[in-house]
Amino acid sequence: MMIPPDELISTIKDNDVYTVAIHVSPDGDALGSALALNEALRLSGKKTILYSKSGVPYDCSFLPQSELFVHTISEKDTAGSILILIDCNSPVRAGLESIDFKKSIVIDHHATEREFGDIKWIVPEASATGILIFYLIKTLGVTLTKDMATNLYSAIAVDTGTFRFSNTTKETFAVAIELVEAGAKPSFVAYNLYNKWSDARFKLLVKTLNSLEIHKDIAIATLTKEDFKETNATPDDTEDLVNYPMMKNVINISVLLREADFNLWRGSLRSNGVINVAEIAEKFGGGGHRNAAGFRVKDDINIIKKRLLSYLNHREK
Amino acid sequence: MMIPPDELISTIKDNDVYTVAIHVSPDGDALGSALALNEALRLSGKKTILYSKSGVPYDCSFLPQSELFVHTISEKDTAGSILILIDCNSPVRAGLESIDFKKSIVIDHHATEREFGDIKWIVPEASATGILIFYLIKTLGVTLTKDMATNLYSAIAVDTGTFRFSNTTKETFAVAIELVEAGAKPSFVAYNLYNKWSDARFKLLVKTLNSLEIHKDIAIATLTKEDFKETNATPDDTEDLVNYPMMKNVINISVLLREADFNLWRGSLRSNGVINVAEIAEKFGGGGHRNAAGFRVKDDINIIKKRLLSYLNHREK
Repeated sequence: MMIPPDELISTIKDNDVYTVAIHVSPDGDALGSALALNEALRLSGKKTILYSKSGVPYDCSFLPQSELFVHTISEKDTAGSILILIDCNSPVRAGLESIDFKKSIVIDHHATEREFGDIKWIVPEASATGILIFYLIKTLGVTLTKDMATNLYSAIAVDTGTFRFSNTTKETFAVAIELVEAGAKPSFVAYNLYNKWSDARFKLLVKTLNSLEIHKDIAIATLTKEDFKETNATPDDTEDLVNYPMMKNVINISVLLREADFNLWRGSLRSNGVINVAEIAEKFGGGGHRNAAGFRVKDDINIIKKRLLSYLNHREK
Repeated sequence: MMIPPDELISTIKDNDVYTVAIHVSPDGDALGSALALNEALRLSGKKTILYSKSGVPYDCSFLPQSELFVHTISEKDTAGSILILIDCNSPVRAGLESIDFKKSIVIDHHATEREFGDIKWIVPEASATGILIFYLIKTLGVTLTKDMATNLYSAIAVDTGTFRFSNTTKETFAVAIELVEAGAKPSFVAYNLYNKWSDARFKLLVKTLNSLEIHKDIAIATLTKEDFKETNATPDDTEDLVNYPMMKNVINISVLLREADFNLWRGSLRSNGVINVAEIAEKFGGGGHRNAAGFRVKDDINIIKKRLLSYLNHREK
């Protein structure tokens, strides 16, 4: 049981208008968490705007009520509202840097500390932000609907890889039971998450696997602008592809390099724990977590790969 | 809670020597269930032989105590013992048809009825045989060890696809919690099940995806003898590969054709329920279940594909 701060509960009880917002390039945890909280606030008689600057990616469009997200917003829409930032901790990440709010609340499970937020509920031990929203809704005394349960179950499923990642605990299962009791269907969520890949995304996976270069325990995949053109894919379609090379038994670190513009590359790094990839990402001006990090760098692809391998091999000394 | 029959409990309490056996080509549910029960019996002072005719496949060799399985057995070894058949319901499936036992017990969750078994505990609603063994060990009053918990968690993980399949229920999660409390580590099990593919198997997956031909909702993959040679893979490495094309959103039927010998092809068929692929397999002299079937046919690959597509397209009329 994770207990929301008293100030969070009293602020929500005492106020009526909210802007619920998530980070750009949202994943199922951000989307599902925001949708469930939005519904709980509305059922409590609050007015809400639900904002996702990047909209809802195709693979999460099955989330109930996901049509409620708006992807443009102005000061007029949000006048007098309290901002609730979900699954991130800065208005820049949500595309809200130019808008002032009456007050701001941050609900997140990412460890990186930021100044922003009048009220912060940040719990890195929570396997998903969805877990925090689950306890928040309970503490607010709102009964879980089937839609809320499906959204929160999806949030947790995405961030734990359906109970496969090391953030899976007894508590994750305990919350899952309550969500199933409230109407979430595990196989419905899993089918929508794992068996409904678009043609473009599927082709991009094949391109990713074909591009693999293996150096000892390091896998490097490269996706060029040409690959995106050929497969008709968008950058959103790369979500999660970096994890596939980790299936191989000797791979400890997987890197996906995606060409965003001429000589501008975005790197995603994954580790199974043997190395802190956030430190590698920082060398390229990026950051992230121990096992999942990213960066953006302008350089020739071969030089980037050489730098990467040099940093990654250096760790062994 | 699933309650074992009284006769099962009293028989185990009153007898001392057991042969615990599983089906050939065993999966994680059979292996993990047998290992957990074997340990519980031994801790209760019983003598046991643990038998797997096919041994322990590479991908399940992480299961604790899996070195205890023997893969040859004789009347002398089993003299005076009670047979406990796990995850199957006939001695033929376990390779034990020529051996007589004092008494036989069947513990299974497959629905197919068979005559065999003096005592039967067959529960098709159980998502895994591991769930039944969990309740049996509890009812016997044996405290779960960490090894038992890991073996039972693995059994359930395999048979539910880590809580992704439609057999995942509230009860599955409730049992998972008790197993985690007893020492099972979800991420350790998932890592061993899904992130330890051999180089050969991984390369064969890439070959499978590259060979895909999509015809409306039908995916056909082809693996030639040349592919096996190039990747250094064996037929065992194709296990489960036919499921990967099902990730795509329009695919209802996936077929994998593997060249076993010159012009001799083995076909594996998967369906998501829209069509009974056993009926298609029968047209080639094979068979199977509604959603998973197979066949063997000697013919030119292009003729086989044409026949397949003709049968599969015919269903729509």
